[in-house]
Amino acid sequence: MDEDILYHLDLGTKTHNLPAMFGDIKFVCVGGSPNRMKAFAQFMHKELGLEGDSKDMKDICAGTDRYCMYKVGPVLSISHGMGVPSISIMLHELIKLLHHAKCCDVTIIRIGTSGGLDMIFLQPPPWKSSNINMTTHSQLESNSVLNMGIEPGSVVITDIAVNSFFKPQFEQVILDNVVIRSTELDQDLADELLECSRHIKNFPTLVGHTMCTYDFYEGQGRLDGALCSFSNEKKLEYLKRAHNAGVRNIEMESTVFAAMCRLCGLKAAVVCVTLLDRLEGDQITASHEVLAEYQQRPQQLIAMLIKKRLGLWYPREM
Amino acid sequence: MDEDILYHLDLGTKTHNLPAMFGDIKFVCVGGSPNRMKAFAQFMHKELGLEGDSKDMKDICAGTDRYCMYKVGPVLSISHGMGVPSISIMLHELIKLLHHAKCCDVTIIRIGTSGGLDMIFLQPPPWKSSNINMTTHSQLESNSVLNMGIEPGSVVITDIAVNSFFKPQFEQVILDNVVIRSTELDQDLADELLECSRHIKNFPTLVGHTMCTYDFYEGQGRLDGALCSFSNEKKLEYLKRAHNAGVRNIEMESTVFAAMCRLCGLKAAVVCVTLLDRLEGDQITASHEVLAEYQQRPQQLIAMLIKKRLGLWYPREM
Repeated sequence: MDEDILYHLDLGTKTHNLPAMFGDIKFVCVGGSPNRMKAFAQFMHKELGLEGDSKDMKDICAGTDRYCMYKVGPVLSISHGMGVPSISIMLHELIKLLHHAKCCDVTIIRIGTSGGLDMIFLQPPPWKSSNINMTTHSQLESNSVLNMGIEPGSVVITDIAVNSFFKPQFEQVILDNVVIRSTELDQDLADELLECSRHIKNFPTLVGHTMCTYDFYEGQGRLDGALCSFSNEKKLEYLKRAHNAGVRNIEMESTVFAAMCRLCGLKAAVVCVTLLDRLEGDQITASHEVLAEYQQRPQQLIAMLIKKRLGLWYPREM
Repeated sequence: MDEDILYHLDLGTKTHNLPAMFGDIKFVCVGGSPNRMKAFAQFMHKELGLEGDSKDMKDICAGTDRYCMYKVGPVLSISHGMGVPSISIMLHELIKLLHHAKCCDVTIIRIGTSGGLDMIFLQPPPWKSSNINMTTHSQLESNSVLNMGIEPGSVVITDIAVNSFFKPQFEQVILDNVVIRSTELDQDLADELLECSRHIKNFPTLVGHTMCTYDFYEGQGRLDGALCSFSNEKKLEYLKRAHNAGVRNIEMESTVFAAMCRLCGLKAAVVCVTLLDRLEGDQITASHEVLAEYQQRPQQLIAMLIKKRLGLWYPREM
């Protein structure tokens, strides 16, 4: 193509010097909420010790209200809205942007929010505490501490994204054919993130499957939508089957994110905080302050990974 | 439920007096872009001759960045982001809001943007003009003026929303069951909108099927995404089949919008402007100014319908 207009980012190969603007990008962090991704950029500005006032940070996609984008040294922070179609538009245009900018060795991480299944069918033990510093699901099982409850606010690092039927695949409709794509994520990156989490105090973290649905209400078994045709028993039976299949949290973007990044050779991870325990209910009732604190947790973890990669932090220092 | 928290709207039954805030709503207009829905609210403020400065209009959902919402007399204007999952979250919470506020006889209209199939395989006749004031698809055929090209910027009123396989249905995953829902829209409302369009000069409008996809690139047969596995010939063959099935434009929200509104007893319409002709290409190359003018067209039409319904405008006056 003579010109490539990245319409939803309001960028283009003729209107912008993409290699000059983005050529040094090594980390891309994506998340649903524009405000959260701006906050993450400001947080990274501080963490990387960059000069200037992070409050003046400019939205690179200011010409459109579809997404927002901030650049902080080698880190790009982008919002993607809610759901598979919304994130897929952004990913197509982001991946083209990275290509046009001749970026290489890029790591991409989704930092999101989710509903947790951690506590489901687990009885809280007498020593239950939110200070427990985490282990993987398989470690939990082998250590026979399966009933060690994990509070909302815990962070799930996705090993594999699964669909509503617990299958590790994404169905992409191409013209009118359905093509099945793998939703595996980078295992080394997940391990590195889990290792980083051990160095943060009071930071419950686990590795598990993340279920991606097309709907927040009926698709996630919520009883409180405008439409609901199933009972509480059916809901719990479904969530139990999900838990048995290894699902530890539920969100709405991970399958297409994993599939597209994999196909395009980007090392990708998904790190989501859980805002509630779906066994306890469907509504998100925690206060704004508590939710805001929860949402900083994946940001903290990613900042640590980026600083480690850039040689600004060494695990042995802890 | 004792309390209902409409999380993504940042509203709730205990924190807000929903009947007082929303009880008089008769028209709900939804669209993807927050800026466009704010502009629509300001436009309606002027059209309804309301007092006060529309620039001071307050976003009712200011506490969240997921959606924005403005109220102008009996009209509610809300953004829904991009894609089926994003609009479905908003619709669940909007429909609960209308229920809690005890609203009745509400008409809901999606005003969106889309890719057009109007001109595909139609030869422009010598008398081709963008001033042609519209007819329905069936009228076009019966009048043997099928090759009367319609420019980008034309407005499509949806008679029925169809999926990527041209079927008039929406597949809702509930727990792990797939439930098929009808995507018919209110026919009388579509006719009323078409009638209104005849009273606006230089306003090419037609009624046709709208295809709703889960993806802007591969799912709509675009050759310019980060991933593309098909040829230009395959793309054109698919778009031709869509056209033959009655599809006149392609967007990303209409099936779930039609299905949910129908099930919840809301009279619903979809009115989208076409930003480009998909026969001519995949990229949206028109200038910001031209695109902005196009996007005002559905707003103009809806304003006319609302003024007619409120007795502020009579067709015979034209």
